[in-house]
Amino acid sequence: MEVPPHATRRAPVRRMPGGASEDDRLAVEEPLEIRINGTAVAVTMRTPGHDEELALGFCLTEGLQPVAAHPPEDLAANVVEVEAPDADLGRVQRSFYTSSSCGVCGKGALEAVAVDAPRVDSDLAVPFEVVSTLPGLLGAAQATFALTGGLHATGLFSAGGELLCAREDVGRHNAMDKVLGWAFGEGLLPLSRSMLCVSGRLSFELVQKAAVAGCPVLVAVGAPSSLAVELGADRGITLCGFVRDGRAGVYTEPSRILA
Amino acid sequence: MEVPPHATRRAPVRRMPGGASEDDRLAVEEPLEIRINGTAVAVTMRTPGHDEELALGFCLTEGLQPVAAHPPEDLAANVVEVEAPDADLGRVQRSFYTSSSCGVCGKGALEAVAVDAPRVDSDLAVPFEVVSTLPGLLGAAQATFALTGGLHATGLFSAGGELLCAREDVGRHNAMDKVLGWAFGEGLLPLSRSMLCVSGRLSFELVQKAAVAGCPVLVAVGAPSSLAVELGADRGITLCGFVRDGRAGVYTEPSRILA
Repeated sequence: MEVPPHATRRAPVRRMPGGASEDDRLAVEEPLEIRINGTAVAVTMRTPGHDEELALGFCLTEGLQPVAAHPPEDLAANVVEVEAPDADLGRVQRSFYTSSSCGVCGKGALEAVAVDAPRVDSDLAVPFEVVSTLPGLLGAAQATFALTGGLHATGLFSAGGELLCAREDVGRHNAMDKVLGWAFGEGLLPLSRSMLCVSGRLSFELVQKAAVAGCPVLVAVGAPSSLAVELGADRGITLCGFVRDGRAGVYTEPSRILA
Repeated sequence: MEVPPHATRRAPVRRMPGGASEDDRLAVEEPLEIRINGTAVAVTMRTPGHDEELALGFCLTEGLQPVAAHPPEDLAANVVEVEAPDADLGRVQRSFYTSSSCGVCGKGALEAVAVDAPRVDSDLAVPFEVVSTLPGLLGAAQATFALTGGLHATGLFSAGGELLCAREDVGRHNAMDKVLGWAFGEGLLPLSRSMLCVSGRLSFELVQKAAVAGCPVLVAVGAPSSLAVELGADRGITLCGFVRDGRAGVYTEPSRILA
């Protein structure tokens, strides 16, 4: 299978340990607005490529009886038009980041989907040796994953690398919401002296949640998406990806990670 | 961290090769309705446990200024009430499976969130040796993952195990939508003589999409959720999980997998 032309994006990364600067390739994450008979019905965060297929499959599996899908006149617009003359739009029970007046066409991806959050203000600095221990400490706390093999996790850590709270869920955004809800209840927000660690990949949505909570360092076992990195840079959050086997890539704000 | 009481559920599984019947523990996936000041604003598919934290974290990161969250009077109702006197509900740009008239309280999880799809009607039967090759064939086609490490994939396979179409995306539902949109465009629906294989875990949503497409066999490298298995059983779809290293667990309709 070939790589669609806009499915990846180059981004600088600092490899740890050592701190060498390299070029990395990220999976692109961008919003796509799906319109049915001219009406915006959904915005999904997707990797560009095969957008018409995506829109057809979405409409099909939502019971909207699509007939055909067309790219927009402006190919950069992140919009797909679906013909579905028999669609009952009342069936669209899910709408992602959307309302009748919302269009991602003509907006940047960040403006289209971002919740307001101030730039994170924190002079936290953490030795890389501490960061590299977080996934293992989180994994050791994943009691339900140990039983089922089927859950994501988020952990909240002190600046010294002590696990303060870990939560699991089938949805990675839910696992982070549970941790942030716990921190809120404990009066710990903003999390300007803490780190968050997730068991999987870093999507835009997870970075957004960390930004709202004011957390300066976000650590992931898996890869960050392009939009996660873009938002991390915009909000001043340090993103560490592929944190495993004593290594990591730091994608944004690397000065917080001490060699 | 302890396992919340309703976070896992026992389910029978047939281990392959060999076909031994065992008991497995699945991560529970169930809808949770989040209400703000009495108004339902979102339904999220989550693992039960720490529901108030989840609701607080969700409201917090949506900018809804929560003050406190309370469990419902009926603890089995899958509803959380959030107090947020200053919430601007116009800010809720995302609503999952929800509308102003939708309540999951008092409904079974399946009725609350399922799109109508008929029971899959197919006498397809596949040797386990064929099923066990699918994740490897899909992995070999994951060109963008190979570059980025950051994408989910879905593959459509013939009954003989030939890869017909593979698609990648940051969202696993999008990867499956792209494949099903391709199949729709090729006039291949319903997929009664085909198999779908996913690179990750099996959520409810992926089984629902396979059901709408009429696909009788769904293969995953990762774990199925409780609701995925419940829906697979209800719609007559064979679900194979943990398909790796020459082994697998068959959770529903095992007669389609030949020893």
